[in-house]
Amino acid sequence: MFSINENFLKLPGSYLFSEIAARVSAYRKAYPDKEIIRLGIGDVTQPLAPEIIKELHAAVDEMGNSKTFRGYAPDLGYAFLRGAIADQDYRQRGCDISAEEIFISDGAKCDSGNIQEIFGTDNIIAVCDPVYPVYVDTNVMAGRTGDYDPESGTFSGVIYMPCTKENGFVPEFPDRDPDIIYLCVPNNPTGTTLTIDQIQKWVDYANEIGAVIIYDAAYEAYITEDDVPHTIYQCRGARNCAIELRSFSKNAGFTGLRLGFTVVPKDIKAGETSLHSLWARRHGTKYNGAPYIVQRAGLACYTPEGRTQIREQVAYYMRNAGIIKEGLKGAGYEVFGGVNAPYIWLKTPGKMNSWEFFDYLLHKANIVGTPGSGFGPSGEGYFRLTAFGTFENTCKAMDRIRTLG
Amino acid sequence: MFSINENFLKLPGSYLFSEIAARVSAYRKAYPDKEIIRLGIGDVTQPLAPEIIKELHAAVDEMGNSKTFRGYAPDLGYAFLRGAIADQDYRQRGCDISAEEIFISDGAKCDSGNIQEIFGTDNIIAVCDPVYPVYVDTNVMAGRTGDYDPESGTFSGVIYMPCTKENGFVPEFPDRDPDIIYLCVPNNPTGTTLTIDQIQKWVDYANEIGAVIIYDAAYEAYITEDDVPHTIYQCRGARNCAIELRSFSKNAGFTGLRLGFTVVPKDIKAGETSLHSLWARRHGTKYNGAPYIVQRAGLACYTPEGRTQIREQVAYYMRNAGIIKEGLKGAGYEVFGGVNAPYIWLKTPGKMNSWEFFDYLLHKANIVGTPGSGFGPSGEGYFRLTAFGTFENTCKAMDRIRTLG
Repeated sequence: MFSINENFLKLPGSYLFSEIAARVSAYRKAYPDKEIIRLGIGDVTQPLAPEIIKELHAAVDEMGNSKTFRGYAPDLGYAFLRGAIADQDYRQRGCDISAEEIFISDGAKCDSGNIQEIFGTDNIIAVCDPVYPVYVDTNVMAGRTGDYDPESGTFSGVIYMPCTKENGFVPEFPDRDPDIIYLCVPNNPTGTTLTIDQIQKWVDYANEIGAVIIYDAAYEAYITEDDVPHTIYQCRGARNCAIELRSFSKNAGFTGLRLGFTVVPKDIKAGETSLHSLWARRHGTKYNGAPYIVQRAGLACYTPEGRTQIREQVAYYMRNAGIIKEGLKGAGYEVFGGVNAPYIWLKTPGKMNSWEFFDYLLHKANIVGTPGSGFGPSGEGYFRLTAFGTFENTCKAMDRIRTLG
Repeated sequence: MFSINENFLKLPGSYLFSEIAARVSAYRKAYPDKEIIRLGIGDVTQPLAPEIIKELHAAVDEMGNSKTFRGYAPDLGYAFLRGAIADQDYRQRGCDISAEEIFISDGAKCDSGNIQEIFGTDNIIAVCDPVYPVYVDTNVMAGRTGDYDPESGTFSGVIYMPCTKENGFVPEFPDRDPDIIYLCVPNNPTGTTLTIDQIQKWVDYANEIGAVIIYDAAYEAYITEDDVPHTIYQCRGARNCAIELRSFSKNAGFTGLRLGFTVVPKDIKAGETSLHSLWARRHGTKYNGAPYIVQRAGLACYTPEGRTQIREQVAYYMRNAGIIKEGLKGAGYEVFGGVNAPYIWLKTPGKMNSWEFFDYLLHKANIVGTPGSGFGPSGEGYFRLTAFGTFENTCKAMDRIRTLG
């Protein structure tokens, strides 16, 4: 008789965004005439840039011609894309990362969920709190976290590092040593960031205790301040301890196109075995490569025209971030983030908890945001708004919030 | 100090197709003038059909327009595609499968590798021998197989069901009861198949012992004989025990486009928990949906024009299969498969083992095939050729084999 993976049953309730979708759907059913503005899920709204569209059409035409048709892609990604990434994202920033250390995938969500597979189940993970739910949930499914305590909203075997306004959203070294440390910089959900000096301390710490840092840099394109590194490999010693996750979703609008990559330097080793070889084996065995046409679209992001166009999109969203930040401040809210990231993190007013504020905003202003508590216990009393809406909707949402009183 | 997933180290050598690629690459380097014909990896060579290309262009245009742009896809797939599949692949064949039971993914390789995650690590798997390596390797990585014995080429905890010419490539019920049974029908690598009566026995057996059948039907489009079912749900009771994997790679040439789906009926349960809910949770947590443009391309396969065009491609490859089969027979080989599948399975001549025949064919005829032993110990002494080459190359390859003497 077959048995199921019991670890799945430890996951509390449904995935955050499914719950949001359910509540919005119920509201829409009850009030079909209300115009809802979605500033919840981190999904982009601007169409793909013209250079990307042009490249997609060209690649599609190739797929329709026997002379240029492409079947299975190389498991780890096409050389043209791995090379462009290594060159422009790393070498031009003075980072020693080779094309062979770049693994192309269908997105950072998959990679951030799958990367734990190459580690033993006895590893202790440390996460910031609040945190992108995928890091914890995928470790739960793998049996690496112990049981869930509904009271505290935490798993017994996970190290949570609170990031709140009290510590300026800077995680502190935990009391006991973790084996795997997840860091998201700039941060989802808080929209805050760490400086290069702060990250260097984490790299030194990881090398000292023999931990690996899973560094999620999905929001790198939104960095505006000079002391924030664009990659963890700008820190000394990161090649020995850090895996970096990157995405095309937020910098180029690929949420519906699916493309990302993971950097695994060959220097991270356990005895004779490199994590690079394990991740390559995982890719080769469980994955069949990102679509050729999508990898070509990715390449368009590295051409001069493409770069300019996607930077304009990022600027568009960051204008929204400024509008939200100032709008909320003007309405009397305490706000964080929005300077190096497309997320604004606000303190819920009075004694409202995160889900109460979700319902309040949905019902009173018809705005969908994301409850901070959905990202972990230290997110309780906070709320996330994203800058990924249209300019018009963002302005309209702030008008509504202003007039809420 | 972090530790690695030690199960990865149990995997013997490199993945079959990587080893083939390495040998071919070495040969090309030594003999750059030789024209190599590849009938090894199951990759298609025909360009995407015109209707698919048309649909891709239309969908790409939508992605470039703010009115029609699509961000994150629904985790489980777009309703338009799930509906078309449920309707045309299942209901029209009299099978009770709903759109909600269809999970869209980026391909059957990923699904066949990931599906084991929803089961406990104590489950015993049974596989045909020879077998598509991904089933076993991904269970090895999950720690479900025990250790590898290089002598026998098997894992201690896996049940192998030999499929050889002696038993007509029909697996027999094993001595001890498995929990998860992998069946690939029509079969990769042998190119043989099971009839509906034979599969019905497996469904009855699985229901009797409480096992789950993972039914890989990636080659369904190649079925030509009436007594071979196009889906396991044509068997009574399959809704209670069978998960079906399907692919767009071989019927429509999507190897480089990436699209597949898995059917998990809601009736398969362990106590209160349905496998459907676990697989949905896995999708929601670890996956972000197949690209919109690729799902639209998938939809094109279900239009009248699209269906006609992809059937012509299948017919093209099956003509190749006939040529290979007759060519090999004419040259004195003992051959199997090639009637309901695009694979021809041949007995290696004399005392040659599979890899010796690989080198022989590569060096003497410059033809790349796949050694049967790469698919499991019972594949030793066999060799796989695929019908996915071009017509011209297939004919040329057979000419070369004929003149080898």
